[in-house]
Amino acid sequence: MKIDAVDFFYLSMPEVTLEGDGSQDALLVRIASGGHVGWGECEASPLTSIAAAICPRSHGACQAVLDSVLGQRLDDIADIPRIARLVGRNSLDLLQADHTWSGIEIALWDLLGRRLSEPVYRLLSAPSAFPKLPYASLLFGDTPAATLAKGRAMRARNFRAVKFGWGPFGQSSASEDRDQLAAAREGLGPDGIMLIDAGAIWVDDLEAARRRLAALEEFRAHWLEEPFVSGALDAYHALSREACSVRLAAGEGSHNPFMARHLIDHGAVGFIQIDTGRIGGIGPAREIADYAVKRGVTFVNHTFTSHLALSASMQPYAGLESHELCEFPAEPKALAFEITSNHLMPGSDGSLRLADAPGLGMTVDPRTIARYLVDVEIRAKGKTLYRTPSVMR
Amino acid sequence: MKIDAVDFFYLSMPEVTLEGDGSQDALLVRIASGGHVGWGECEASPLTSIAAAICPRSHGACQAVLDSVLGQRLDDIADIPRIARLVGRNSLDLLQADHTWSGIEIALWDLLGRRLSEPVYRLLSAPSAFPKLPYASLLFGDTPAATLAKGRAMRARNFRAVKFGWGPFGQSSASEDRDQLAAAREGLGPDGIMLIDAGAIWVDDLEAARRRLAALEEFRAHWLEEPFVSGALDAYHALSREACSVRLAAGEGSHNPFMARHLIDHGAVGFIQIDTGRIGGIGPAREIADYAVKRGVTFVNHTFTSHLALSASMQPYAGLESHELCEFPAEPKALAFEITSNHLMPGSDGSLRLADAPGLGMTVDPRTIARYLVDVEIRAKGKTLYRTPSVMR
Repeated sequence: MKIDAVDFFYLSMPEVTLEGDGSQDALLVRIASGGHVGWGECEASPLTSIAAAICPRSHGACQAVLDSVLGQRLDDIADIPRIARLVGRNSLDLLQADHTWSGIEIALWDLLGRRLSEPVYRLLSAPSAFPKLPYASLLFGDTPAATLAKGRAMRARNFRAVKFGWGPFGQSSASEDRDQLAAAREGLGPDGIMLIDAGAIWVDDLEAARRRLAALEEFRAHWLEEPFVSGALDAYHALSREACSVRLAAGEGSHNPFMARHLIDHGAVGFIQIDTGRIGGIGPAREIADYAVKRGVTFVNHTFTSHLALSASMQPYAGLESHELCEFPAEPKALAFEITSNHLMPGSDGSLRLADAPGLGMTVDPRTIARYLVDVEIRAKGKTLYRTPSVMR
Repeated sequence: MKIDAVDFFYLSMPEVTLEGDGSQDALLVRIASGGHVGWGECEASPLTSIAAAICPRSHGACQAVLDSVLGQRLDDIADIPRIARLVGRNSLDLLQADHTWSGIEIALWDLLGRRLSEPVYRLLSAPSAFPKLPYASLLFGDTPAATLAKGRAMRARNFRAVKFGWGPFGQSSASEDRDQLAAAREGLGPDGIMLIDAGAIWVDDLEAARRRLAALEEFRAHWLEEPFVSGALDAYHALSREACSVRLAAGEGSHNPFMARHLIDHGAVGFIQIDTGRIGGIGPAREIADYAVKRGVTFVNHTFTSHLALSASMQPYAGLESHELCEFPAEPKALAFEITSNHLMPGSDGSLRLADAPGLGMTVDPRTIARYLVDVEIRAKGKTLYRTPSVMR
């Protein structure tokens, strides 16, 4: 069967603030092939990713992503990496292509799963999906008191593991950061799993990261996430050697599997965090899950938006029993939560399970799309290259 | 003084073919500040790069590039890396931002050079610009006979060094590639410097590259460029160890300095090729030139479009006497050649010199812009975010 249509839906909250909250807008991808439909989500700038999908070509290796997707055969799962290679070749010089393609790739898995009546993880050869330990993913409070309250609230919601990130952390003094860490630990209680996300704030400044190590170890952070930007492998490696109990986590910035491998091999991270909506989709994420096993590193999903993206991010390592932690966006904006009419919620035992349902197992709610849909029009060379489609078909 | 205006001009040939010729369109950037104007060029998909410049923000670390540029102070050269850090932080999750920013950064250097009446290389502390040995950068002919004729034609045009790339090379058998290499060598004569560009055709397939090594050494290729994609560091490293006389060249895909450093440190390339229109502009390119010196690797510019881009690509290593080779687009499309009314042409001794003139020393021709200008309009959230500007101001 052929890929008949690929539609992009750009959703946005009425107001988008400057806080580090990636759930304020979304780019959904809907694919139609042979009477079936699949959905995916790019974790990316929506307008820029749409432009990469439909832009006029610059030359043979700088073509719009859709030029390598529309009309392609989609008969079985081997077609997905085949189309990925085509996109990789034809969009080699189009930087944003990796982000655009990621959402498409996810939608192709969802579609094939629905057509074959199998959950995606089973198409990836995992006989069943092991329960994960969800960690509530939060922004730091503006003050230590606010952080403490957030930690307590999450324990009250039955989360044993909580991640605090971004906000003021890393931007003022090491002593103020220590106060935040103390508050986080107090909020979580002594048995809570505390994860800290510096949001790449120190870029590649090893010394700035070093100054926080003692407090991170004192308050028993399980990991320090993204002290540096994805490319700063030398700084990762050096910091990793100096840390005692805290291990480094990174990988969300990987827009291809090579970057994730380098963080493991040359950056010496202990946790590799992969966003299927950026790395090229579910196939490349699965490749990194396998690589992590081989290298003795723990795979973790990265996701901060909808439960569609959450499901996609969990499929690649659903079959890895001992890779247990799982990012769970605990305070998403209404838009992100309402994208699906069903949700992946932790059970009474605190663990999170993928449904044994076809594809990604999630139902996209067209009313949500209609409510938050952004009206976009892109014209070039005398043609309308993109206009926001209708969600009804 | 403040940055008052940043305008993007998307130019295109009437027809854009699928050949690997990056001179078929262009994205020019014009910046105005305090009565001065500077010009730069992104080596990137024009429409996608414009979208990254003006897109609605997704969150604090996924903002449009111009949000960190417009209104910024531009008093001296230290402002350029300062604005670069701002873009890096505010557009961390916007993949295309690196390509968009590259053209802006180049325009900032051009503007400051004009304001201070100094060539950019002198602002970079090079007292003078050493002559370079330009190599004619060509696509392989469709047949060995066509390649042979191209080689002869370039020798007749006084080019001692010629690079053949893309086209059929690497896509058929090793034996057919050998015929192409034999023809290239015959066309260049025994004393010609022969450079071969595989255009990343083997992705990360070490074995495919290996099968061509013997012929590359037999016909004395000076370098083999991009056997693999930029991220395939392990494959680069392995191939580099197996090669005897031929050295590896790569780096044009680097969209930040980290990637270039990794190709040197982990990929073991002998030549690092930097496109200022992709890596983040002239500052990061200069950083890699310094790093190459430290690591005993040769820096080479990468450029395949206009003489504005050629000048920008030469500034970062103008002061390095022994890093002599220089890419010269020998068969650009009319659009690319006509972007500037003056040109950097090899002298009668065959060498290429940057002019001792303010900024990049190039004069952009508004008639060319008017002739090739693409009409673009981008609307979102009820606003016109971009409309092709007038070149007159």
